Amino acid sequence: MPQIIKERLFTPGPTPLLMEGQARTLTATLHHRTESFRKIMRETLENLRYFFNTKNDVLMFTSSGTGAMEGSISNLTSPGDRVLVGTAGKFGERWLQLAAAYGLETVKVEAPYGQPLSVDEIGKRLKSDGPFRAVYVQATESSTGVSHDVKAIADLVRPLPETCLVVDAITGLGTTDLRPDEWGLDVVIGGSQKALMVPPGLAFASVSEKAWKLIEKSKSPRYYFDFAKERKNLAKGESSYTPATTLVVGLHATLGYIREVGRENLIANAAMLAEATREAAKALGLSLFAAASPANALTAIETPEGLDSGAIVKEMRARFGAIIANGQGTMKGKIFRLAHLGYYDALELFAALAGIEIALCKVGHQCELGSGVRAAQKVYMKYAG
Amino acid sequence: MPQIIKERLFTPGPTPLLMEGQARTLTATLHHRTESFRKIMRETLENLRYFFNTKNDVLMFTSSGTGAMEGSISNLTSPGDRVLVGTAGKFGERWLQLAAAYGLETVKVEAPYGQPLSVDEIGKRLKSDGPFRAVYVQATESSTGVSHDVKAIADLVRPLPETCLVVDAITGLGTTDLRPDEWGLDVVIGGSQKALMVPPGLAFASVSEKAWKLIEKSKSPRYYFDFAKERKNLAKGESSYTPATTLVVGLHATLGYIREVGRENLIANAAMLAEATREAAKALGLSLFAAASPANALTAIETPEGLDSGAIVKEMRARFGAIIANGQGTMKGKIFRLAHLGYYDALELFAALAGIEIALCKVGHQCELGSGVRAAQKVYMKYAG
Repeated sequence: MPQIIKERLFTPGPTPLLMEGQARTLTATLHHRTESFRKIMRETLENLRYFFNTKNDVLMFTSSGTGAMEGSISNLTSPGDRVLVGTAGKFGERWLQLAAAYGLETVKVEAPYGQPLSVDEIGKRLKSDGPFRAVYVQATESSTGVSHDVKAIADLVRPLPETCLVVDAITGLGTTDLRPDEWGLDVVIGGSQKALMVPPGLAFASVSEKAWKLIEKSKSPRYYFDFAKERKNLAKGESSYTPATTLVVGLHATLGYIREVGRENLIANAAMLAEATREAAKALGLSLFAAASPANALTAIETPEGLDSGAIVKEMRARFGAIIANGQGTMKGKIFRLAHLGYYDALELFAALAGIEIALCKVGHQCELGSGVRAAQKVYMKYAG
Repeated sequence: MPQIIKERLFTPGPTPLLMEGQARTLTATLHHRTESFRKIMRETLENLRYFFNTKNDVLMFTSSGTGAMEGSISNLTSPGDRVLVGTAGKFGERWLQLAAAYGLETVKVEAPYGQPLSVDEIGKRLKSDGPFRAVYVQATESSTGVSHDVKAIADLVRPLPETCLVVDAITGLGTTDLRPDEWGLDVVIGGSQKALMVPPGLAFASVSEKAWKLIEKSKSPRYYFDFAKERKNLAKGESSYTPATTLVVGLHATLGYIREVGRENLIANAAMLAEATREAAKALGLSLFAAASPANALTAIETPEGLDSGAIVKEMRARFGAIIANGQGTMKGKIFRLAHLGYYDALELFAALAGIEIALCKVGHQCELGSGVRAAQKVYMKYAG
């Protein structure tokens, strides 16, 4: 019996940590109101601009990504403002909940789970139901593994002078080509525990000049997630309130690594792993849940007829210490999700797939052992030569 | 192109570190002449007895394993003494070099590389060429992947009242069933960077009562590796000279983990991984170098006709950051070696094999991608259910 089991995360956050980043936090006995820390903070913010692919300010908050999502509601709107929300899963629904919490009037463009948002419908609603203060979407919907056409949505919003586009790119950053400045993504939101390879606890928001103008006029209540206040303090290298210092130091280190790897290469790595996973799923006789527009950040695979994905998740955890994600909400039991976010390499994917083949076999799905791995190997070889 | 590459060791030492053990060393600001450290040392020595499967004293030295090998020569012999050395590879040859350095008269029993020692021949030489002060062998020969029949050799040496059996079990411990007390293994040698999951720097030797009697009479020069002096000091929880304190603290932690896993389970884990690797090699059309008596510690695989194993090693390193071992000495280029020593699990082996399949393909060996992984998966399922 195999008695050594190493725990591994294959979930769309938290993701595997870069140990060099973690190691750096061990000596981080820094006070946050010192020049030593301000230097780290300034460099981190500069490197976040690189990671976000923008010249805009990138704000940082000690919170989960949802905190920055809330900030992009409270800072851009006044009570009663009309906003358009594109939703195609659990994280799209979070926009609806946030808009309701702040008393906004919401027009919803909805896609069925597993499908991307209809750009046509967004275009129609922008014309027929506007004006809107802001449009809220995801870059990739982590609950379904779908990638939305952010560029096409941006092309619709950019010409509207009083409407900002807010993109939750918490799992999109580092996995998807996003061009905030070129396309006009006014607010882009990120989180530390995704492609950035550090633990949960930090949230980010890049903010465009167009958004800053709107923020000045917005009257929704805010305090902790006050964008203008944070911008002012961060310009001095300080956060308004006590930051999670070790996470900042860890992030400083991982951003150094990401600059070495290169943003585009990090994205290409996720794209390769995602394609390999899709080919593996097909080889194993499984269907992709988001086949029409799959994300690079994660792959959602449908559980074979008559089986519960919880059983596959459980097998992976018990046998291999490997944590993969079940579906959420109404998709629970129907899909399982495997992430490619950040610090993953090809060998790790081969290992995960070999484990999944065994788990599938054990829960009663007939498939040829090794055939998923083989399909993934072929994709690797297509790109790596 | 895959841009994220994680470095992984698949070498027969150093081996993957247990991070929990490494983490413990970070706060080890201990002085070695304090009761805090003595407590850790005493517990570590007690747990080493468990790991060695013996009630004998286990000595610890700050050195590589070769230091304890030298000690087992210098402490058990006097100049001109006759010893029998069983050699079947590079580490057997080290016994010959050590015996020569101390001016011993050596009778050599040699097996071709890839073959185990002939117990018959050892028996004949013990009768015809004795008396011997000591017999020196390996438990597993790391350079060829061979396992020797230590029990059968012990059966021959145990009845001889003036002859000790010394076993280099540096890669044998934690991978092979060894019973020093039951079989009469008078000195058993280990090293930290093998199944013990800590970095290199500590060597160990268990010493039987029979060996202690011989040590009293032995006159070869020794100082740093003086077994009797070390025994006396370690009884007080102190080493004679400054110990590698952080390695001791790390070892204290990993031995705690090994007790949780269980010595027999650790061995069974290596045995399963080794069998899986052998079946994978066969499925890939490769020959095993030590097919007659393969070790659990590592698997030596012959390079296909016309190919150089250096090319496979290089592909693994460049593509996947995975370090596998080439052959040593005359076997360089002809074999490659994959270890199963200590902190390895099934997923890690699947990953390594998927990588090796690609490397083989790239250097020109025809094999079906995924077929080695499949063979290994089947062995896993045979044991894990």
